[in-house]
Amino acid sequence: MTVRIPLDTLRGFAQEALRHSGLTPEAAGTAAEVVVYADEHGFTTHGTNALAGIYSPRLLDGRINPKAVPRTVVETPSSAVIDGDRGLGLVTTTLATDLAVRKARQTGIAMVAVRNSSHFGSAGYYAHRATEAGLIAIAMTNCGAQGVAPPLGGLTRMLGTNPLAVAAPAPGGAPFVLDMSATTVATGRIRAAQREGRQVPEGWLVTPDGSPVTDPDAFFEGKADVTWLGGSVATGGAKGYGLALLVDLLCGPLAGASYGPTPDLLEDGDERPDTDIGHTVIAIDPAAFGAAESFGAGARQLLDTVSACPPAVPGRAVTYPGAPEAARAEESAREGVALPDHVAAQLVALAERLDLATPVELRGAGASR
Amino acid sequence: MTVRIPLDTLRGFAQEALRHSGLTPEAAGTAAEVVVYADEHGFTTHGTNALAGIYSPRLLDGRINPKAVPRTVVETPSSAVIDGDRGLGLVTTTLATDLAVRKARQTGIAMVAVRNSSHFGSAGYYAHRATEAGLIAIAMTNCGAQGVAPPLGGLTRMLGTNPLAVAAPAPGGAPFVLDMSATTVATGRIRAAQREGRQVPEGWLVTPDGSPVTDPDAFFEGKADVTWLGGSVATGGAKGYGLALLVDLLCGPLAGASYGPTPDLLEDGDERPDTDIGHTVIAIDPAAFGAAESFGAGARQLLDTVSACPPAVPGRAVTYPGAPEAARAEESAREGVALPDHVAAQLVALAERLDLATPVELRGAGASR
Repeated sequence: MTVRIPLDTLRGFAQEALRHSGLTPEAAGTAAEVVVYADEHGFTTHGTNALAGIYSPRLLDGRINPKAVPRTVVETPSSAVIDGDRGLGLVTTTLATDLAVRKARQTGIAMVAVRNSSHFGSAGYYAHRATEAGLIAIAMTNCGAQGVAPPLGGLTRMLGTNPLAVAAPAPGGAPFVLDMSATTVATGRIRAAQREGRQVPEGWLVTPDGSPVTDPDAFFEGKADVTWLGGSVATGGAKGYGLALLVDLLCGPLAGASYGPTPDLLEDGDERPDTDIGHTVIAIDPAAFGAAESFGAGARQLLDTVSACPPAVPGRAVTYPGAPEAARAEESAREGVALPDHVAAQLVALAERLDLATPVELRGAGASR
Repeated sequence: MTVRIPLDTLRGFAQEALRHSGLTPEAAGTAAEVVVYADEHGFTTHGTNALAGIYSPRLLDGRINPKAVPRTVVETPSSAVIDGDRGLGLVTTTLATDLAVRKARQTGIAMVAVRNSSHFGSAGYYAHRATEAGLIAIAMTNCGAQGVAPPLGGLTRMLGTNPLAVAAPAPGGAPFVLDMSATTVATGRIRAAQREGRQVPEGWLVTPDGSPVTDPDAFFEGKADVTWLGGSVATGGAKGYGLALLVDLLCGPLAGASYGPTPDLLEDGDERPDTDIGHTVIAIDPAAFGAAESFGAGARQLLDTVSACPPAVPGRAVTYPGAPEAARAEESAREGVALPDHVAAQLVALAERLDLATPVELRGAGASR
């Protein structure tokens, strides 16, 4: 069951909730836009769900610094490092994206790395934001020192799911926006199956000896691990694992943030903090490649052509990453954002905790829980 | 069965073969290094095998321009476009890599795109080359207008396997080098199974209705397609497909080279040329991020820690992309490069065609064919 809530109402509520969790009005506005982007585009595990479950509680208890003042600590014409001052990843990464876009317009390509940050929500937001300025972008985050998945063929959880988003403008239709974790799925989807009492598809989870598992509890009990994109060694699992290492190298050692695989992990094995997460944003200006107009036209043609490919299953049209999400955003604008009941109920509880007015659209959900 | 041949002997032979196929001595030396890198590191589908099967014949018949003079046609402080003059991808991409490295040292990050080029061999070579200068790099290529794989859920082969390599220096041990296609496997591995009369593992090939296929002939007969990294939609196939689109967007519309998904493809369906392939190289200088020393040390620690992870299968140590290839290169240096008999036989035939002396190490293989 879902409820529908107008985009502006949800954005206003998210901003108020963030402001009452300690952010300045400006930072709250920035973060609310990232939060609502996720729900608007159908990434309900990374939107107001995370507002209620991660951002607000951690801003309130100080694990995320609500009064953070991010600052650029190293800078060259095409690069920068931002120290996030332990602040909210949604805010620091929006700053990083805009800085990367400004620099790329000057020099062709730019990269901004962020350290001392926190959960940044939907990676696709930042890459998509750059496309609105006409640029191509790549955004990624590690998961700090948290160990979510073992290296391929290993027993100890050392690495994050390490999401990576890539987007390119394609005027005249939906932009290309690929938003992916390096694992087969993000852990939020395993959590969702657990909550709904569903088994997960074969291929998501395996035991250490490689047997497939479909019970989501097995993941949370440490009996099965999430697979790397590609699955086993035979079907390319080293590629997903390798992409996770790439993300960790750029967001950990390069950005100067924490990362999972440090020697102490092998000694203590305790649950590790998700503070000092690192992010990286790369922006590319097609104009610098003499393709100010031709890139967008070519991208449009390429994406339209794959979309026109005869489908393998009659009636199930071929699409590309970004197109279904754009259709979902249109629906959200027209009919309101669809929120699962359990998210709506979380927002009602959040409103109570923060002493905020509960948007009328959410009230029923709170009662129905 | 394999034969062993000293690295220098193989490199000298490859250079002579390329020179006698029309390249200048300098270009032949550059290309020979790329060719031999592949065999040296165990990528035998992309080394002297391609020299005999692709580079030499196409240089001789003019499909690849042996007298190409690549030139930079657009340039900014952090970007450039090189027109390859229809020359050998191995040469143009080495130039592009070195230009990206020089520019990144000035500005922090740089990207060089190449159009009007051809098959560039092992993507890992270029990324690895940048690590020897202390930089992080990403190298990718599309497959020109060739259609090798259909978009996810589609019937018409429109896209290439679109390889992507990423490498990072990690002094004190093997660098990180991830060299991957966006499909579950490169087509060379399907060809190898066919040649050896083996079935391929389940997960590599599927029929349009999604049934698994293990007969490699089915791929070459057009009855089954190679899967995208991740496999089906349920297990993340949209991610491999999305990575292929990313590579095509950067190497096609951005570089100004050909790409598969153009509307005429849906009309004629003829075999399409592999001329005018595009490549892209991105180089990143850790020094620009204040991490001139700390990046390498952190990368080493991260890679050593995953390598020390307790293995799921006792005795089967955990590794990372780049480490097995570095071990193979050490073996090649010590014992000579291992070439499968059928590759050695191809080189014997090539030597005869070009009227070159056949290295003594290869002679037996030619006779045994």
